[in-house]
Amino acid sequence: MDRKLIERLTKVIGKDYVLSTPEDLAVYSYDGTFAESRPDLVVLPATTEQVSEVVKLAAEMRVPIVARGMGSGLAAGSIPNTSGGIVISLTRMNHILEIDTENATIRAEAGIVTADLQAAVEKVGLFYPPDPSSIRHSTIGGNIACNAGGPRCLKYGVTGDYVLGLTIVLADGRILKTGGKPIKDVTGYDLNGLFTGSEGTLGIITEALLRLVAKPRYAKTALAEFSSLHDASRTVNAILTAGIVPASLELMDQTAIICIEEAMKLGLNTDVEASLIIETDGANEQNVLSEIEAAAKICQDTGAHSVKTAQSETERANLWKARRSISPALARKAPNKLGEDVTVPRSAIPEMVQRVRAISAKYGLPIVIFGHAGDGNLHPNILFDKRDPEQWKKVEQMVAEEFEAALALGGTLSGEHGVGVLKRPYLEKALGSISLDVQRNIKRALDPQNILNPGKMFQE
Amino acid sequence: MDRKLIERLTKVIGKDYVLSTPEDLAVYSYDGTFAESRPDLVVLPATTEQVSEVVKLAAEMRVPIVARGMGSGLAAGSIPNTSGGIVISLTRMNHILEIDTENATIRAEAGIVTADLQAAVEKVGLFYPPDPSSIRHSTIGGNIACNAGGPRCLKYGVTGDYVLGLTIVLADGRILKTGGKPIKDVTGYDLNGLFTGSEGTLGIITEALLRLVAKPRYAKTALAEFSSLHDASRTVNAILTAGIVPASLELMDQTAIICIEEAMKLGLNTDVEASLIIETDGANEQNVLSEIEAAAKICQDTGAHSVKTAQSETERANLWKARRSISPALARKAPNKLGEDVTVPRSAIPEMVQRVRAISAKYGLPIVIFGHAGDGNLHPNILFDKRDPEQWKKVEQMVAEEFEAALALGGTLSGEHGVGVLKRPYLEKALGSISLDVQRNIKRALDPQNILNPGKMFQE
Repeated sequence: MDRKLIERLTKVIGKDYVLSTPEDLAVYSYDGTFAESRPDLVVLPATTEQVSEVVKLAAEMRVPIVARGMGSGLAAGSIPNTSGGIVISLTRMNHILEIDTENATIRAEAGIVTADLQAAVEKVGLFYPPDPSSIRHSTIGGNIACNAGGPRCLKYGVTGDYVLGLTIVLADGRILKTGGKPIKDVTGYDLNGLFTGSEGTLGIITEALLRLVAKPRYAKTALAEFSSLHDASRTVNAILTAGIVPASLELMDQTAIICIEEAMKLGLNTDVEASLIIETDGANEQNVLSEIEAAAKICQDTGAHSVKTAQSETERANLWKARRSISPALARKAPNKLGEDVTVPRSAIPEMVQRVRAISAKYGLPIVIFGHAGDGNLHPNILFDKRDPEQWKKVEQMVAEEFEAALALGGTLSGEHGVGVLKRPYLEKALGSISLDVQRNIKRALDPQNILNPGKMFQE
Repeated sequence: MDRKLIERLTKVIGKDYVLSTPEDLAVYSYDGTFAESRPDLVVLPATTEQVSEVVKLAAEMRVPIVARGMGSGLAAGSIPNTSGGIVISLTRMNHILEIDTENATIRAEAGIVTADLQAAVEKVGLFYPPDPSSIRHSTIGGNIACNAGGPRCLKYGVTGDYVLGLTIVLADGRILKTGGKPIKDVTGYDLNGLFTGSEGTLGIITEALLRLVAKPRYAKTALAEFSSLHDASRTVNAILTAGIVPASLELMDQTAIICIEEAMKLGLNTDVEASLIIETDGANEQNVLSEIEAAAKICQDTGAHSVKTAQSETERANLWKARRSISPALARKAPNKLGEDVTVPRSAIPEMVQRVRAISAKYGLPIVIFGHAGDGNLHPNILFDKRDPEQWKKVEQMVAEEFEAALALGGTLSGEHGVGVLKRPYLEKALGSISLDVQRNIKRALDPQNILNPGKMFQE
């Protein structure tokens, strides 16, 4: 890396926050995937203005820049595409700038951990609903860059549904401010929408203004067990078309249930094809209760083997413990797992599950399926041992076949993880060449030198 | 207009659907504003492929194209900017292509009237919530192009929140398909979001795939009258922060109430500063009732003079009749009215109303205020006589001052009408020069010849 660039960056940010030793760089070479790619330099700016100065220098020298929060991404989107370039870590920019209780908004820096942001607004009776499972170790900026989801998104919508305004450093270093506190705004193109989910390829998000809602005071949770996966799936539809909008409607297949039970001994029935965890929430206890009862009744009507509504907070906590323990439970079964994020029309869930099972059988590696059934968003997790190159090769083929299956069923590659590097080879197949061309044109218009997270989503 | 172009268009669309007589062109020279601008030619294609052929010809000859639904727009966005060019009317493309009850989606051509689409899905127990007041005479394509709103958008979100996929003819005639039935989709940039609200400047929407919800079975409506506008305004916030999300939360100021009462004799109390119409809805009658009661209780606590909950469908219909009769009632007061669409953070509603009143007093023309208070979206309507050039000049100054006031309070130019030609002069002030530059870059990337609705939103 150019000596002069390092000196100039040091002048902008201070020497403690420009990292270039091999040990430091190693830390920033990974995300939540198996990928690895080392930057030449890591900078940790403290302000939007510093980010702007860094980008200006990088633009002048045509050095790639990769913005990064806590590196929990699941698509290799926040590490360099090919080694080299500057990683901008936004983790020092983790301050809450304003909580406006009257308008129910929060303004925060991009590097704040989402769980910290949630906790802060809940203290004043407000609520930031999106709940990616990385919530305790991912940043709001990363959530916005990937348009993250989570179980609660069925009722409440995804991250992008809460973005009212952004501060963004553009590819030439200029600072763009979008949106504002008004809930409705059709003044000009929807730049909030365009930058949300753009994975750092169009600009670097440094601040966000987010919409909040009232904190729900009550929640009720039920577990419904089904002998038939098809019945579980059509229950999802029956609940939603009855006008019940659960906060969450989570599906676990038999393999997932067996894994949890083996690991946790929660007394789950492992002799079922699928379970649904259903949660309703709201401001009025009676209403929340009547909704969960109505949902439970539908489960019975659609052939549930058993339906249990949690009668206490402990019972409710146990149900969620089961759901959340899937990932750790899988770790006991195999050294490695690769979780995908395909989304299908919800009517196609049974067929998608069948196809995933067929892929598992074909390659002889187990796949555990769970996910956000109300949204049709499934996380098939392949269990394997990465040390065995044969298995790794199989896993790559299996993932490709999972994508093929999702696309064949009218689905898509990603519901909440993003494209990054890992899904790039499948993007044209998913979106078509015209869409890809439009996206490239937008990228070129906003980043003509291709310095912002180059090679992510698509190759220029 | 080039003879050859007319011949080639006729070959594509058929002579009955290429209009060029002065009488025909006159019909397509207006929208819902006072603006007037005549196209050279009007074409009425029947398919996306025909739209594509028209755009290819126009691109070849560098002739501007303005897409148009039913011409109910309120920003002069669907008539030529300066006279001339081709207007593409999409009104023949008004077919429903699929209603998928299992996935709760509808696919329809862009030219269908939104009320017709709503009626069709309600027949099968589904619901398309957005309800712009033009619903009986505006098209879904126009609604999407402007990201239309309506009273129900407080609970249900705006048009864009229901767009799952679009078929779009690009500036070079290529046909782009975006999105699909999956509810969650982060595969690539959010093109649905970018084209929604782009007012025909980036592409011509010919088909839409829309998300639906279950039709709410019950609705309860209350009217709360306030001696103080400030109390009415803080009630809005109190209701929302209590975790109640009414389907609608509509504000009418005293002038609006007086106009309605004079016209309709509904027995409204005209001695109040403001009224709120509050509606709750849902699948469970008891829950809907308990929500309206909780909202009514909050109104009493925040100083409502009187709160009446409709006890029958007739009483409920009368309340909405009052709200809907504002516009016709105004017509009795003055020959003309100009309604604006400013949006402010909801905490700023009282201040915005004060400022609008001050503008009214300064120029000596009445302004009636009503709107979607939960969203901070106000429609100040100036009453005047357009035949008097002095008054028209005043109106233009008054509108400019309304925009100034909204921007000064952290608001914006438009919550649901769009920018079109009429708000173009204020766009840079609202968004800043960097945002405008980014928007121009996007426009150039997707329409390098500037043939799609040129001069709308901003001048190239």
